[in-house]
Amino acid sequence: MFRIPNSSTRPAGGSIPVAVPVWSVDPRTGKQREQVATEATAAEVDAAVRAAHATRAALADRDTRIALLRAAADQLEADGEAILAAADAETALGSARLTGELARTTGQLRAFADEVADGGYLDVIIDHADGSLTPPRPDLRRYKIPLGVAAVYSASNFPLAFSVPGGDTASALAAGCPVVVKAHPDHPATSELTGAALRRAAARVGLPEDVVTVVHGFEAGVELIRHPLVGAAGFTGSIRGGRALFDAAAARPAPIPFYGELGSLNPVVVTEAAAGERAGEIGGGLAGSMTMGVGQFCTKPGLVFAPAGTAGDELVDALTKKVGEAAPGVLLDGRMREAFLAGVGERAALDGVEAPVAAGPGDARTVAAGFLTVAADRLAAEGPHDLLLEECFGPLTVVVRYTDADQITAVLSRLPGNLTATLHLSEAEGAGDGGQGGRLLAELTPIAGRILVNGWPTGVAVTPAQHHGGPYPATTSTSTSVGVTAIERWLRPVSYQSAPPALLPPELREDNPLGLPRRVDGRREH
Amino acid sequence: MFRIPNSSTRPAGGSIPVAVPVWSVDPRTGKQREQVATEATAAEVDAAVRAAHATRAALADRDTRIALLRAAADQLEADGEAILAAADAETALGSARLTGELARTTGQLRAFADEVADGGYLDVIIDHADGSLTPPRPDLRRYKIPLGVAAVYSASNFPLAFSVPGGDTASALAAGCPVVVKAHPDHPATSELTGAALRRAAARVGLPEDVVTVVHGFEAGVELIRHPLVGAAGFTGSIRGGRALFDAAAARPAPIPFYGELGSLNPVVVTEAAAGERAGEIGGGLAGSMTMGVGQFCTKPGLVFAPAGTAGDELVDALTKKVGEAAPGVLLDGRMREAFLAGVGERAALDGVEAPVAAGPGDARTVAAGFLTVAADRLAAEGPHDLLLEECFGPLTVVVRYTDADQITAVLSRLPGNLTATLHLSEAEGAGDGGQGGRLLAELTPIAGRILVNGWPTGVAVTPAQHHGGPYPATTSTSTSVGVTAIERWLRPVSYQSAPPALLPPELREDNPLGLPRRVDGRREH
Repeated sequence: MFRIPNSSTRPAGGSIPVAVPVWSVDPRTGKQREQVATEATAAEVDAAVRAAHATRAALADRDTRIALLRAAADQLEADGEAILAAADAETALGSARLTGELARTTGQLRAFADEVADGGYLDVIIDHADGSLTPPRPDLRRYKIPLGVAAVYSASNFPLAFSVPGGDTASALAAGCPVVVKAHPDHPATSELTGAALRRAAARVGLPEDVVTVVHGFEAGVELIRHPLVGAAGFTGSIRGGRALFDAAAARPAPIPFYGELGSLNPVVVTEAAAGERAGEIGGGLAGSMTMGVGQFCTKPGLVFAPAGTAGDELVDALTKKVGEAAPGVLLDGRMREAFLAGVGERAALDGVEAPVAAGPGDARTVAAGFLTVAADRLAAEGPHDLLLEECFGPLTVVVRYTDADQITAVLSRLPGNLTATLHLSEAEGAGDGGQGGRLLAELTPIAGRILVNGWPTGVAVTPAQHHGGPYPATTSTSTSVGVTAIERWLRPVSYQSAPPALLPPELREDNPLGLPRRVDGRREH
Repeated sequence: MFRIPNSSTRPAGGSIPVAVPVWSVDPRTGKQREQVATEATAAEVDAAVRAAHATRAALADRDTRIALLRAAADQLEADGEAILAAADAETALGSARLTGELARTTGQLRAFADEVADGGYLDVIIDHADGSLTPPRPDLRRYKIPLGVAAVYSASNFPLAFSVPGGDTASALAAGCPVVVKAHPDHPATSELTGAALRRAAARVGLPEDVVTVVHGFEAGVELIRHPLVGAAGFTGSIRGGRALFDAAAARPAPIPFYGELGSLNPVVVTEAAAGERAGEIGGGLAGSMTMGVGQFCTKPGLVFAPAGTAGDELVDALTKKVGEAAPGVLLDGRMREAFLAGVGERAALDGVEAPVAAGPGDARTVAAGFLTVAADRLAAEGPHDLLLEECFGPLTVVVRYTDADQITAVLSRLPGNLTATLHLSEAEGAGDGGQGGRLLAELTPIAGRILVNGWPTGVAVTPAQHHGGPYPATTSTSTSVGVTAIERWLRPVSYQSAPPALLPPELREDNPLGLPRRVDGRREH
């Protein structure tokens, strides 16, 4: 029914279960590095979920969770050298990028520790009894409790920050949910190392190691989403794989929330005036953003509206120069390289599409970045050019040349949901002159979760105001997978009515022993 | 594929579309009162959704929405006499109950107006740029925006508070979402009257009337959930109908949130000590709660754990006396009456089940309340007695006699999710003595959304701390359909990165012109 990329092979037929090896592969050579595990059987997935489920009570203590998240960050740093070496060998993302990603990962874990300490995410609301009302109001106290075992599906392109020790795991643990992670087959060795670090951190703060378990294998991922003790799932990956898991989550006898981040085109609109002011700067910035990490970011700008005419030409020239200078790079795995080259070929062959810099193979293992141009009217109605409105994972972008604002509107109205949308405005437009800036911002807001002005969408700050999500297929929910509000995904409210003070959890006690922000009889207290 | 109860009939076959009449039926007589509408065709549903969609910009203004919600409450009161007459004639719920429901409905609308004015639901978070960080942090400002047209599916048992002018509609309008309501076939005349009141209120505050439209018919409901411009849906009703619509929402090319409140058994645990202290009071209270509204509340206590032995016998005696005194009542429609009588018969026929007061037919249109008793060990493992763990809509409850606490635990662990769970404790247990109260509270919390101590679950206060939701099948989401936090269901976050001040919406401006509560650089401000 669905396929998640998997580098291991499964023997055909036969009734005797055979352990399927999981290999770490070097994408720079295509060679197997080592066997790091075997795929989890259905029984092993069941055991992992049951063991995780048994740790819920231990995770219920707030201070222990704070200690766990901080210890996990410390342990990842302590094991940093080995983790970074494995991650680079498995993903070819390079040491600088991965060092930054490790810092992002530990920063996330510590940010969630701070959020647990703050306690605002518990959304405590207390309404005292009021017998003078009709009908009389009972004492009601509401907060949020964890949903149970979280299933986390790792991303290919972030072996740390969106994988075993990543934001989904950190936010779920912060909420009090034990985690079973389905490792991504592109980095099983990194997954094992980081999983071991998290388990050591758990032991160090006196928690059972089974608060986090790593499993490998496509079938294991399917078993996981169907397991009755799994209470919610987080996923970062492709539309096809994510939708299949979403469908499986919805089809369960008791459906569970599925927080999937699937795919995004990340449109960019450059106004005529902005191009007139700084075409070279915008073209150069676009080249940097679309080739960063060999174009393997979910926020890569994949569709760029640039004006027809000389200012737009100048932008394209700057883009041509910079993209042409980019060194070929290695994609995360061989399958992605094939898909990228095929996707480039199909798009370049469309009528009226030109390739000022042709993306294509570098040497036998690399790909060269490139971009395509097309006139906006080709995208105004359904047709073969709709392929240009689909994400092409890798270092390719499509520049749409428009002659008037209506053409932008027409194409934007045909786009699916996006993680980001970006607007490049002139100084006067940014100051509100003429209304063009406000109009475009209003057109971009319904189709994305984050709207940028005069910037680039790659680089997703981990901050409370971040929103990394958007209308389908950007995400399958209304939530974010980056920033501290990601903790909300793993909780549900519960209200206690007329519960005697002696039986209330500390979070709901009248004297507020944990010092939580709360809303009492309509007034906010903190 | 699925059936929502529908009192109208559809002509078989034929290619010429025939207008299918929608009749108002009096359940006290079974007779048609009047034809109030025709079922909406696919084209009519499409037109309603498109017209609603076109009102989004008008609804975006905060003050207009506040005015709309208050005007709607006023208009419902002004039209109250006609609305109450129609509702009583169509539902047989009685004037007293319906007068209370109308007050609840107008109170809800005004509470949401206050919530819009408060603005806390927008969850404004602002993080200022910080160039000293690695990587530098951009200016990010997050708030919430409406999801688009809301589809609302009315409940049979609350013709006002959970129907056209009910909590789903009020919360969606408060969020800025236009609403298309699928009327319930048990009260089409009431739906038309209340829909007209809402539309008049809209016109009165200068809004297009199409901010709310009412449609009738089973097929119309299916068209509605599939419409590409519908952004989210709310539903109150049966597990079968709700699950079918949930599945349809999940199967859309772009899935949407489906907030369904489906069914609940609402377990009650009476401890030995509580029964020892006040068996008569508990038995009498239970009788009142389970027969209220002819047992047609979603929070009706449907499974009650009472101790074996004399204290439990005394409770059963009090229940017998009070339930035996209850007058027969008319259910919402003839189909429900048949389903209730069949459900009672199947349950009473199970081995070891007794009926101290036999539920059954009253006269040709009414039913008499009753209850069943069964020993707890009959429910410890899968078997035919599992039928007793399914909701039986109407005035029936099942008393489970237990001999020790482990039997309670065993049965509770087999229950699906519930809206409520209730605990009756002795004074000492409530004070924390012996730990029994805390243990039971901890066992009930995972299976319900609202936990009551020494009270009855019928009667759901409309207050900020209310949570009317629970694990599946109580609800299909983690949200509530009662209380002001219900507004969260119709919104999604969006972040603006580095947007120039002149282009920011007022909600996100530095000087906070709307006076919204917000979190700025981690500090809460209001």
